[in-house]
Amino acid sequence: MARLLRAATWGLFPWRGYCSRGTKGFVEALKAVVGTPYVSTAAAVRAQHGQDESVHRCQPPDAVVWPQNVDQVSQVAALCYSQGVPIIPFGTGTGIEGGVCAVQGGVCINLTHMDRILELNAKDFSVVVEPGVTRKTLNAYLRDSGLWFPVDPGADASLCGMAATGASGTNAVRYGTMKDNVLNLEVVLPDGRLLHTAGRGFWPEVPHHVVGGSSWALRGHWCPLPALVSLTWPALSLVPEFLDDVMMDACNRHGKLNCSVAPTLFLEFHGSGQALAEQVQQAEEIALHNGASHFSWAKEAEARSQLWAARHNAWYAMLALRPGSKGYSTDVCVPISRLPEIVVQTKEDLKASGLTGAIVGHVGDGNFHCILLVDPDDAEELRRVKAFAEQLGRRALALHGTCTGEHGIGLGKRQLLQEEVGAVGIETMRQLKATLDPRGLMNPGKVL
Amino acid sequence: MARLLRAATWGLFPWRGYCSRGTKGFVEALKAVVGTPYVSTAAAVRAQHGQDESVHRCQPPDAVVWPQNVDQVSQVAALCYSQGVPIIPFGTGTGIEGGVCAVQGGVCINLTHMDRILELNAKDFSVVVEPGVTRKTLNAYLRDSGLWFPVDPGADASLCGMAATGASGTNAVRYGTMKDNVLNLEVVLPDGRLLHTAGRGFWPEVPHHVVGGSSWALRGHWCPLPALVSLTWPALSLVPEFLDDVMMDACNRHGKLNCSVAPTLFLEFHGSGQALAEQVQQAEEIALHNGASHFSWAKEAEARSQLWAARHNAWYAMLALRPGSKGYSTDVCVPISRLPEIVVQTKEDLKASGLTGAIVGHVGDGNFHCILLVDPDDAEELRRVKAFAEQLGRRALALHGTCTGEHGIGLGKRQLLQEEVGAVGIETMRQLKATLDPRGLMNPGKVL
Repeated sequence: MARLLRAATWGLFPWRGYCSRGTKGFVEALKAVVGTPYVSTAAAVRAQHGQDESVHRCQPPDAVVWPQNVDQVSQVAALCYSQGVPIIPFGTGTGIEGGVCAVQGGVCINLTHMDRILELNAKDFSVVVEPGVTRKTLNAYLRDSGLWFPVDPGADASLCGMAATGASGTNAVRYGTMKDNVLNLEVVLPDGRLLHTAGRGFWPEVPHHVVGGSSWALRGHWCPLPALVSLTWPALSLVPEFLDDVMMDACNRHGKLNCSVAPTLFLEFHGSGQALAEQVQQAEEIALHNGASHFSWAKEAEARSQLWAARHNAWYAMLALRPGSKGYSTDVCVPISRLPEIVVQTKEDLKASGLTGAIVGHVGDGNFHCILLVDPDDAEELRRVKAFAEQLGRRALALHGTCTGEHGIGLGKRQLLQEEVGAVGIETMRQLKATLDPRGLMNPGKVL
Repeated sequence: MARLLRAATWGLFPWRGYCSRGTKGFVEALKAVVGTPYVSTAAAVRAQHGQDESVHRCQPPDAVVWPQNVDQVSQVAALCYSQGVPIIPFGTGTGIEGGVCAVQGGVCINLTHMDRILELNAKDFSVVVEPGVTRKTLNAYLRDSGLWFPVDPGADASLCGMAATGASGTNAVRYGTMKDNVLNLEVVLPDGRLLHTAGRGFWPEVPHHVVGGSSWALRGHWCPLPALVSLTWPALSLVPEFLDDVMMDACNRHGKLNCSVAPTLFLEFHGSGQALAEQVQQAEEIALHNGASHFSWAKEAEARSQLWAARHNAWYAMLALRPGSKGYSTDVCVPISRLPEIVVQTKEDLKASGLTGAIVGHVGDGNFHCILLVDPDDAEELRRVKAFAEQLGRRALALHGTCTGEHGIGLGKRQLLQEEVGAVGIETMRQLKATLDPRGLMNPGKVL
């Protein structure tokens, strides 16, 4: 590493701002760290890394690197730090808050080549993975162990990206979010030093900083994995998903299903034998007593998978309603006691707005999304979509909720964050970020 | 508040260091904030507040104040900040890591007068409390609501103290620790500003800073409360407590019980009807298959309460074995797969050491305590106890565990913390602490 740091500080030009054409030596230094095939400055590659699935405009990085291990990440960070170059992490690009946009340029670190599962500790319900492992890959690996990684935001995101946004998803109310399921991180600090957030309990600060904040390089996720064997769960306190009529219609079309086009609550029960039957019966009674038109359930694995696949593809099912459009997802979360009123009000707002949108929600913990369709080239429609999202965010705040249940703040919700946490909150967040990232190089321009 | 800040900066002497006799004006200013009856500089009162239940030597504060509300806490903080006076929070004094020792003097803020339960949101499983509410008081209040606050460290500690140490306890494996159960905090920053850690998900930094760190003033705990109604839990993944033979003997004597004097695993099952019976049967089969001498169980509330009361009084039961002695509790936590080996080894070490000690553990999450008896005036015995605790801490670290499962670092485990998190870890923690507490006045001399 000493050799490369010397290379980095010897005769290299600052990346941007100081000297826009002095980049060649810097790129050579990046190649010396990760190998020539793993650095690209091609326009198409940079464009692909400057955008996620949101409507946020593409802002490409100046270069993309694919490190193969933690040591290389550390060296790339040290190199960038020495030259004042921003660094932006990249997992699968499935985020929807513009988190990967390189608003000040810099080096995008694509972590997908770091995709090994390093250690499975079945007795401890934990696993050590590299950051580029996706949740589906992890679960495929775990299948025979009787274990399962429960955090499921819909997309097959990388675990590093899920940690960065604090992903939640369908199983959150039962199994918790990333915050609850990440036991430990190995973090590369901006200057390249490695921080091990070992142990538990007394190390509350840094993991959560980096989970919810600006960190981008992590190898060791220790994820507690609930065993799938002999579980019996409290009825009605798990995995409830709500899809409104528009969303059910979209899912029917996209997933070739034949469900009723009506607001629908999906409930998944985990258990066996008598206990399971009791839960289902209780749920049916409660549903019908509360005015449900009917209650049906799928026991066979195949039928269940089909239903959940439809739910998981809700984002794409919506996009398919109007080909060429982009999706814009709101992400409010309110105390569950306030959920019915805000859903009803939002449904009315949707109708009044004339926008194409549907509601889908992990309603067990009060988090729901309005997925709106927008033509990103139609400035007027984009303005109306943003105004709708902002109005919904403010309504959630008024109900003591939050503007972001699981997608993070990214680029689009910085104003709402200010309203949510107030001046002292923002100031404190800024101070903490500056402490960990004194030169402001870690994914700058996001959140704060 | 402006008035009092003026009073504080007008003609007052710094508290310590600069002028040891210029304190009268400062005490008057404290009285102007909280009222004359709620400030004391009496030696006996100060001594009572300079010590918890540990062997750490009493280090009294210079004054004790009892604020009645958040505004008064804020004003006391601003006053101390303006004069460079340390502040130390005080709940029930039941800690065992010396967290309340005023190692640099200063003002002790006793929060027990702030003991109101402000808001119960039964539908949201949350409650808003002032910091001086104890866990038993909260549960007595909740009894009729069908809800329950599960974090139970043994002592009837204040919720603010439990938040400060990140308390865990008997129910942690099933319901989580304080970190999982505190939704929100209202925090008084060192200069008196109020920070609301509202919302969820994107506010990971500050609550955990203050929960595990140096904070001392909080009003709003939002605690998710698992409903007691219609719960069925996975067998064997809940509330398992281990007591060794010495501890069982002590509990028998202290609690007037007649349990076998043998290493014993307590299991509590939550459920009803058929599911409960199935779980108990499974547990019995597993226990006997693994060499248990016998398996017995208590169903009636009274018998269960008696058993748990014995467990809750383990600390006092141990002290009663040798009147006049103090307790010294270790607090390691290891991955559960390594628990058997470390418990067996520790038991052998205990015998070899000649010390009086017993093992009790929340073994579901790998956390166990060795409660050792020590005469604090016997320097040689104290030295041997500390050496034993340090050896055990190092053994836990070697097994990828931690030196502190739930008691916090306080005064006695600073060296072990360094070994656990390394130089980069300690440096980062120091930087984060300094960011939130730039003048180093928040309970100085602890942890770092």
